[in-house]
Amino acid sequence: MSAQNSTIYVINPNSSTVVTAGIDAAMEPLRPCGLRIECVTLEGTPKGIQTQRDVDSIDGPLLNRAAQLEDSACGFVVACFSDPGMFALREQSRHPVLGIAECGMLTAMSLGQRIGVISILSTSIPRHMRLFGAMGIMDRIAADRAIGMGVADLADDARAVALMSETGRMLRDEDGADVLVMGCAGMARFRAAVEQAVGIPVVEPTQAAVGMMIGRVSLGWAGKTDAKAAR
Amino acid sequence: MSAQNSTIYVINPNSSTVVTAGIDAAMEPLRPCGLRIECVTLEGTPKGIQTQRDVDSIDGPLLNRAAQLEDSACGFVVACFSDPGMFALREQSRHPVLGIAECGMLTAMSLGQRIGVISILSTSIPRHMRLFGAMGIMDRIAADRAIGMGVADLADDARAVALMSETGRMLRDEDGADVLVMGCAGMARFRAAVEQAVGIPVVEPTQAAVGMMIGRVSLGWAGKTDAKAAR
Amino acid sequence: MSAQNSTIYVINPNSSTVVTAGIDAAMEPLRPCGLRIECVTLEGTPKGIQTQRDVDSIDGPLLNRAAQLEDSACGFVVACFSDPGMFALREQSRHPVLGIAECGMLTAMSLGQRIGVISILSTSIPRHMRLFGAMGIMDRIAADRAIGMGVADLADDARAVALMSETGRMLRDEDGADVLVMGCAGMARFRAAVEQAVGIPVVEPTQAAVGMMIGRVSLGWAGKTDAKAAR
Amino acid sequence: MSAQNSTIYVINPNSSTVVTAGIDAAMEPLRPCGLRIECVTLEGTPKGIQTQRDVDSIDGPLLNRAAQLEDSACGFVVACFSDPGMFALREQSRHPVLGIAECGMLTAMSLGQRIGVISILSTSIPRHMRLFGAMGIMDRIAADRAIGMGVADLADDARAVALMSETGRMLRDEDGADVLVMGCAGMARFRAAVEQAVGIPVVEPTQAAVGMMIGRVSLGWAGKTDAKAAR
Amino acid sequence: MSAQNSTIYVINPNSSTVVTAGIDAAMEPLRPCGLRIECVTLEGTPKGIQTQRDVDSIDGPLLNRAAQLEDSACGFVVACFSDPGMFALREQSRHPVLGIAECGMLTAMSLGQRIGVISILSTSIPRHMRLFGAMGIMDRIAADRAIGMGVADLADDARAVALMSETGRMLRDEDGADVLVMGCAGMARFRAAVEQAVGIPVVEPTQAAVGMMIGRVSLGWAGKTDAKAAR
Amino acid sequence: MSAQNSTIYVINPNSSTVVTAGIDAAMEPLRPCGLRIECVTLEGTPKGIQTQRDVDSIDGPLLNRAAQLEDSACGFVVACFSDPGMFALREQSRHPVLGIAECGMLTAMSLGQRIGVISILSTSIPRHMRLFGAMGIMDRIAADRAIGMGVADLADDARAVALMSETGRMLRDEDGADVLVMGCAGMARFRAAVEQAVGIPVVEPTQAAVGMMIGRVSLGWAGKTDAKAAR
Repeated sequence: MSAQNSTIYVINPNSSTVVTAGIDAAMEPLRPCGLRIECVTLEGTPKGIQTQRDVDSIDGPLLNRAAQLEDSACGFVVACFSDPGMFALREQSRHPVLGIAECGMLTAMSLGQRIGVISILSTSIPRHMRLFGAMGIMDRIAADRAIGMGVADLADDARAVALMSETGRMLRDEDGADVLVMGCAGMARFRAAVEQAVGIPVVEPTQAAVGMMIGRVSLGWAGKTDAKAAR
Repeated sequence: MSAQNSTIYVINPNSSTVVTAGIDAAMEPLRPCGLRIECVTLEGTPKGIQTQRDVDSIDGPLLNRAAQLEDSACGFVVACFSDPGMFALREQSRHPVLGIAECGMLTAMSLGQRIGVISILSTSIPRHMRLFGAMGIMDRIAADRAIGMGVADLADDARAVALMSETGRMLRDEDGADVLVMGCAGMARFRAAVEQAVGIPVVEPTQAAVGMMIGRVSLGWAGKTDAKAAR
Repeated sequence: MSAQNSTIYVINPNSSTVVTAGIDAAMEPLRPCGLRIECVTLEGTPKGIQTQRDVDSIDGPLLNRAAQLEDSACGFVVACFSDPGMFALREQSRHPVLGIAECGMLTAMSLGQRIGVISILSTSIPRHMRLFGAMGIMDRIAADRAIGMGVADLADDARAVALMSETGRMLRDEDGADVLVMGCAGMARFRAAVEQAVGIPVVEPTQAAVGMMIGRVSLGWAGKTDAKAAR
Repeated sequence: MSAQNSTIYVINPNSSTVVTAGIDAAMEPLRPCGLRIECVTLEGTPKGIQTQRDVDSIDGPLLNRAAQLEDSACGFVVACFSDPGMFALREQSRHPVLGIAECGMLTAMSLGQRIGVISILSTSIPRHMRLFGAMGIMDRIAADRAIGMGVADLADDARAVALMSETGRMLRDEDGADVLVMGCAGMARFRAAVEQAVGIPVVEPTQAAVGMMIGRVSLGWAGKTDAKAAR
Repeated sequence: MSAQNSTIYVINPNSSTVVTAGIDAAMEPLRPCGLRIECVTLEGTPKGIQTQRDVDSIDGPLLNRAAQLEDSACGFVVACFSDPGMFALREQSRHPVLGIAECGMLTAMSLGQRIGVISILSTSIPRHMRLFGAMGIMDRIAADRAIGMGVADLADDARAVALMSETGRMLRDEDGADVLVMGCAGMARFRAAVEQAVGIPVVEPTQAAVGMMIGRVSLGWAGKTDAKAAR
Repeated sequence: MSAQNSTIYVINPNSSTVVTAGIDAAMEPLRPCGLRIECVTLEGTPKGIQTQRDVDSIDGPLLNRAAQLEDSACGFVVACFSDPGMFALREQSRHPVLGIAECGMLTAMSLGQRIGVISILSTSIPRHMRLFGAMGIMDRIAADRAIGMGVADLADDARAVALMSETGRMLRDEDGADVLVMGCAGMARFRAAVEQAVGIPVVEPTQAAVGMMIGRVSLGWAGKTDAKAAR
């Protein structure tokens, strides 16, 4: 790939720089790979993406920002667990585009058999279930349980870890999960603590997506699915 | 329901008044039900909704227009086979909200066992498959086949009917479909001709959705799924 | 449709006029639609349909009664949550035929993502599961739980509402349901109370079926699936 | 098991003694097992079971005849590929009850991965698909294809074998089937010829069911599923 | 079948003669069938098959031993709930080959609608889930719960029955199971006690497999699926 | 990770150095990642893995070789499309372990909606289907079609590319695939030619697996699924 195309842009669709900072810190272990990993915050979007309206409002800002970054990019990661705008960005960009919900689940499928998802609010769950159904992986879902904290509430680390750990144990013991996925980019910094507390693998979805992107960029396989399928 | 809430608004998300006129004509058999059925064309949206970007671009205009219509509405039907903005509008409106893809498929499920879908372009099919997967009805899908005509091309009635009939026969004979769904609101006026040609039930999805909406309005069941599920 | 074909017949397959009266009351909100909705009680059938034998015994009486009503009918609704005789009646009648289990579930699919079913007896559940499997919607089922009351026991309103509400909360909180379906026509009069108690949409299946029938009649789509598929 | 309970009754629900004779001949290889295998023809039922009405009409005569045979029976096999009355008979009898559709498919699941079904008429297919869905085995179905011959037409052996072989090859080559099931008890005598012609295992469902019944009787596991599950 | 091919070999892949003795005792009710049923213990294999490595280590010893027995065999049953080597043995032998996991589940599918599995260790469950997924029967699984006892621990009968009964009741009441399968050949002797305690049918998988094998041998249908499908 | 743990070992389970060389060449684009990627050929295993016996025979040699490499490894990739020994190696190694079938399919799930698989022999297909079922992704499979060439035959490049391209076009046009996966490690060098010929993304599974491994190693998530789930 050409010199000017050497950056993986991880776009945080919400406008919370705190969340972006958490994502950026989570990228550290992946930075030795030789590709620049830059985390970007969209502007004019909600502080947290919690409703379907929030999800649907991301598309325009995301496509516009990605268009500006296209020439310096080698790949894009959409860092919201509802994968807003992912398929539209795949149509627009000539680079690989990955979403954290899709990659978080695909990664979990290689770490365990029954996936438990830890969500922020119960209102997120029907949306997640539609996404898992669209992925055709419902048979791999143990359950999706919410901790009942909004994105902003996650600032309370102690409470977040406690609730996520308790929810993780329920997913493990009552629902039979043997791997967990954190269902919000804002949970990134809690991965180690929750895995420690629950004792089964915990997937941080932005790390999962960028982890998959590194190889994808090297292989040069772009995700222009729909367009390519057209004839 | 109060006097001022007596209109079912059928919103055509694309900006083609020709398509809206076709939908409006298809509403005739449903008008004796006693509720006003008014077909609305969004402005500033694509002439045809053919890409994921097109789909995702509908949300804002749809929500804004629906907000203006909220007080005079008793229900909203989103008349595009990708159900753009349907879930967000369910959050916004206090009235029932139905999408034509969802209702077209649900209606077909009561008319046959194996559903064949006739799409405009092959690029629509992966998007439809994600939607059918999100609905959890993949076991009911015989196949989804495209006629290779864009929304604009449908103006050529003879060619459209010929290709839709040929595709319908393939869905029936090669894929085992015993009911068909037309996968685009722009196909509304061809229903009778295609059913005649193929000999199995053919669902026109906007008729299916408004047909379901009439009872829904009477029952006063609103679709505020996600919101209601929150706690 | 001709003058003499203007009645939707809602046939209660069991011989309990109390159940029929409850169904009839539930039809009130749908009567402004302009079609006559007449509730009919079969004779010589069980007081409650609780076993597979009960279900299978309905077919003959149902087809005979429907044949007598054919000329004055514009549609038939089979008002038992096992949809006894529905497919056979679709073969016999030239009018649309809908069952309340099928329509209750299809309607719930447009009101929520994960469906919880409230059944009378645990013996009903395997039969329901077979029906949901035949519909191909198992991925949408949160759970089906029984209240342990027979059809006759439902006469105890207070107890029925209490048990249905408790069961509904379990379906919501333990099984992740965001919409409920009442799994017996005899529960019709409890819909509002249970929805109030549980706080998520509750589908009364006979209302759901007749609500879908109104539009179906107007569209003139008959359910002669199997016959039409023959060649 | 007591002396008087030593007969497996294979009940042919249709009233065609020709079909019963074909079934009886197919039982020969299973007779050395030490249990009497007696094939019974119901009276007053259709000559061939081809419509849903036919299927639903079997229940009463089947239960009555089985009740007369209960004391001398050690097990019942319902020999029609729609398994009419199977679940009701499981409620009535204290003996194991198996159906040929269920057992034909379960047996095929241990002989191949992708099952192709050869049906008589295309009208049978939606009914079969509902049954396979109720069994939860849709992922194992390659396809179900009809030869377009009614039960009576099967008297033309040469034509039947030719059409079944041609259909079997289509199921193998176009649909990827690696095992076939004959979807009608009336096809029993063609098993060897079709297997020879197609070159993959062919399951004759009545043989499959009685083959499973022999062990079931010895184990004394009765199929009173629904009743047992009640509490 | 020729005189020298008259023995069903039930091969216990682990090297525990105690387990083999338990299996042998469980064969008694099936012995009147007229075929010799001989239980064989593999040598040099683990005492209990509890890890994936254990499962994968069985193939060579199993195929070698089965080759020695081929001439005197009429069928082979692999008596470990992970069905180790079953598909490879189907390639090697000209006789029917059945596995106890596959047959235990297929048998349960004719005894109930929702299957609960009682496993020894939670580490077995992901492996079982992969197997059930490969069988395409996930929609029939209520849950798979472990009692937390290794194969050796099962020597403590009282504790085993108590834990299996408690787990069975959880599968019945919390997960909605209406039939149970014992997920280890070493549990054979506890079937009656657990069925008595839980009150729903309990399938002992080796009995289920040999019960199916008796008919299979008589019919002469071999399971050379993959080989036969080749062309 | 420590200095001595810096090599991703790609183990070709068959003993064909030609296949290993093809895999090694396919690794070139992934080598700039900074981790050593070393391709290893097992000894004493079949030249091509084509039967279930071949698959099952890999486990011992694979585990032994991997044990020798454990200290210098940072991850293992099993380079056979049946993922032989993958789960056992996950139990043995403290490093991440990925299989090419699993990763090839997971990668395809992020490149298209309907996956077509190109296999060598039709005998591979039932085995693949069991694997896809175990992964719970059957709803994403368009079809799996064989080119009818053994591993050795692939030496005929022109014929292999021609048959793979023809098969890919059938998967695209008849089965609706919008992404393809090459179902054999021996096909590695044909990826570009087939993608060029068919015009939809083509996944080379060893590249897909190593591409995913690079990030996995950096994140230090090991795949000890079963072990971790134990308690």
